Amino acid sequence: MKATLIYGAGDIRVEDVPDPSVQEPTDAVVRVLRTCICGSDLWPYGSRPATGEGERIGHEFLGVVEETGADVSRLKPGDVVVAPFAYADNTCQFCTEGLHTSCPRGGYWGADGVDGAQGEAVRAPWADGTLVKLPVAEDSVLLPSLLTLADVFCTGHHCAVTAGVGSGTTVTVVGDGAVGLCAVLAARRLGAKRILLMGRHASRTDLGRDFGATDVIPERGEEGIARVRELTDGEGTHTVLECVGTRPALETAFGAVRDGGRVSRVGVPQYEEGPVGRDMFLRNVTLTGGVAPARAYIEELLPDVLDGAVEPGRVFDRTVGLDEVPDGYRAMAEREALKVFVRP
Amino acid sequence: MKATLIYGAGDIRVEDVPDPSVQEPTDAVVRVLRTCICGSDLWPYGSRPATGEGERIGHEFLGVVEETGADVSRLKPGDVVVAPFAYADNTCQFCTEGLHTSCPRGGYWGADGVDGAQGEAVRAPWADGTLVKLPVAEDSVLLPSLLTLADVFCTGHHCAVTAGVGSGTTVTVVGDGAVGLCAVLAARRLGAKRILLMGRHASRTDLGRDFGATDVIPERGEEGIARVRELTDGEGTHTVLECVGTRPALETAFGAVRDGGRVSRVGVPQYEEGPVGRDMFLRNVTLTGGVAPARAYIEELLPDVLDGAVEPGRVFDRTVGLDEVPDGYRAMAEREALKVFVRP
Repeated sequence: MKATLIYGAGDIRVEDVPDPSVQEPTDAVVRVLRTCICGSDLWPYGSRPATGEGERIGHEFLGVVEETGADVSRLKPGDVVVAPFAYADNTCQFCTEGLHTSCPRGGYWGADGVDGAQGEAVRAPWADGTLVKLPVAEDSVLLPSLLTLADVFCTGHHCAVTAGVGSGTTVTVVGDGAVGLCAVLAARRLGAKRILLMGRHASRTDLGRDFGATDVIPERGEEGIARVRELTDGEGTHTVLECVGTRPALETAFGAVRDGGRVSRVGVPQYEEGPVGRDMFLRNVTLTGGVAPARAYIEELLPDVLDGAVEPGRVFDRTVGLDEVPDGYRAMAEREALKVFVRP
Repeated sequence: MKATLIYGAGDIRVEDVPDPSVQEPTDAVVRVLRTCICGSDLWPYGSRPATGEGERIGHEFLGVVEETGADVSRLKPGDVVVAPFAYADNTCQFCTEGLHTSCPRGGYWGADGVDGAQGEAVRAPWADGTLVKLPVAEDSVLLPSLLTLADVFCTGHHCAVTAGVGSGTTVTVVGDGAVGLCAVLAARRLGAKRILLMGRHASRTDLGRDFGATDVIPERGEEGIARVRELTDGEGTHTVLECVGTRPALETAFGAVRDGGRVSRVGVPQYEEGPVGRDMFLRNVTLTGGVAPARAYIEELLPDVLDGAVEPGRVFDRTVGLDEVPDGYRAMAEREALKVFVRP
């Protein structure tokens, strides 16, 4: 079969790889119906050293179960399923608590001998725990929105949930990428009163307004912080959803949050040290969030996707075939495309 | 009257200063019955530059109202009161939300023309909001425990509350100073299942056991973290209460916390940057806490102090008069005394 590999910064190739097969009795093999490229894929695309070795990439997919191991009881060939971006057994204590990303038997796609998602098929470990059956046909028009349950919509939701967004909360969202826009959607869904979206790409912030942003702030850094404060009687917002992952984005988040408020981050940190000294302490600001346990949220968010109450799939603004995935990376890296949908 | 001033590192003096008087109609003048020395006073005691200028110091007191301004309606001369370590109007939005330390009209004792607490009397701004009347006589045996409501018991409680300690929670407390011990007491009071106290001073950790610590860990750093994990099936505790304020203490806290857990800190940070990168993110660890809005907790904690259900005043292990305050600082800095109680 064909799958996408990354060889180094800017070097994405679609190549023949061995077909996946059931290796453990808890595995399933899934034929990929749809996959996509993530903002977080752009970090290795921008900086991975060229080692001469290719590495599978991609962590978002939905597909059709083709084969199941002997211990898989909840799925059968033909089922349409979505996978969260981290596989997990869904039975351990961490999974029970909703922290599937800390499952001792879990892991990430494209690492440790597990297939990446940007290919024609995937071996899914702990299939009963990992995969969630979708009550739709293979050609459902809902596939784009359903695919966001693999990552970006659940990630935006995790950001809003850990920030404590609820009825009456004021929110600043830092970043107008797919996760930022999904965080807007999630915050709105959870009852946020006011949502300030920081972003400067009109096509994205327009979608952000459709998703529920009440204000758009194109300014960045100190100017952006000043604008948030201007719009909130000088106080900042109860919560800031940091959906970028850079140090400047984190600094903006701390500057925009109200005393006693929460900064939640879901962008993979591109820093090791952060400004968590006296200012944060004296203002009782909390830093929370983290890698989203998407699996924990799929059942909760699925009904709203199925009945069209939310349409997170609108973040996809370009569709490509598998062979065009390298160009999809380029388009996202150059901000020509917001998020690229892939039909293998 | 006499009061304590700090002139520089190691240079504490008790000198004559002007008697306080009502300056604003919202002020009260309070004769100090008891005050004390705080672990946080030791930071300037250890490092303040000698400028030739003395500065008032101390932020914990209880006393008797001597005079009130025209707008003070809830207090009258003769009332026994305790003051939180930050004054506040108790009417603004932040105070209403329980974040008195962010009151726009509030501030700290010993700064901006407001008296420090280590003296014979204090002018209390926003007296109706700041001071809490105590139903005890001037010679009550409960004065030591009541004085801890000014800071250390409320601070330990804030640490436990923001960490989310409740029934069944596992807790590590970093630091066996007065705040750490009060954090143990507060965690126990809130229903913690297991409380691991990190400290190596037997007299302190013995009191910690009396306060509710189930385990004492004398090891520090990586060894201390390993010990916490050994005691918790390798996982760490749901919460870590960081009651020191140094960078190594923060690192220990991150190492000892369970995935998905919360590190809460109430020791004034002696660092500006912290290790909040990828490890914290991938483990969904939250950093919370901050300067304690003690005023928000006094009414809640007061009944348990009055009926003896908790005895936080046991952290005082030495009593001095005002003239002996400089030696009290020395004794605390040299760890001869845990916390020094002062009878002016």
